[in-house]
Amino acid sequence: MQTAITPMREAFVIKVAATSRTSSVAGAIAGVMRDRQHAEVQAIGASAINQTVEALILAKSYLEDDGMDIVFTPNFVDVGIDGKIRTAVKFTVDPR
Amino acid sequence: MQTAITPMREAFVIKVAATSRTSSVAGAIAGVMRDRQHAEVQAIGASAINQTVEALILAKSYLEDDGMDIVFTPNFVDVGIDGKIRTAVKFTVDPR
Repeated sequence: MQTAITPMREAFVIKVAATSRTSSVAGAIAGVMRDRQHAEVQAIGASAINQTVEALILAKSYLEDDGMDIVFTPNFVDVGIDGKIRTAVKFTVDPR
Repeated sequence: MQTAITPMREAFVIKVAATSRTSSVAGAIAGVMRDRQHAEVQAIGASAINQTVEALILAKSYLEDDGMDIVFTPNFVDVGIDGKIRTAVKFTVDPR
């Protein structure tokens, strides 16, 4: 289980790895959206970004069942990993 | 130049390949959004999806300069390529 949910600046950032299970990530996104009506999902690299997009599609279908329609805004963010700065993509999730 | 803009069901679908230039795709998205206030961007495979996400971030910054804030909705779509059905991700782009 590579999905980690960590508190950061009062928001939960869901960090997605290339090895994350899509359904686990989607469940985490849906759960955070139900609780907070806002979520942030962060991925580094093409595989992890692909996983994140698939998880967002799945989370969207979960939340549609609850009557919530969500939209996404991607942004680049610099994150420090093992003392190095890497560029991640952070997807902000909000109700439409 | 791998980016193709083709008319489909009255909407323009911007098709992104792994080899597409991010800035070309971003320019196409921004142009279609300025013209139509709606765009659809389609990609198959992790590399092309990654390219698309990066192009969406860039297009977003272009359009912010015009005072337009955009959001994205990804969906799976089945597309026929060379007689085979493949699953693509289609990103719908709309003003917030």
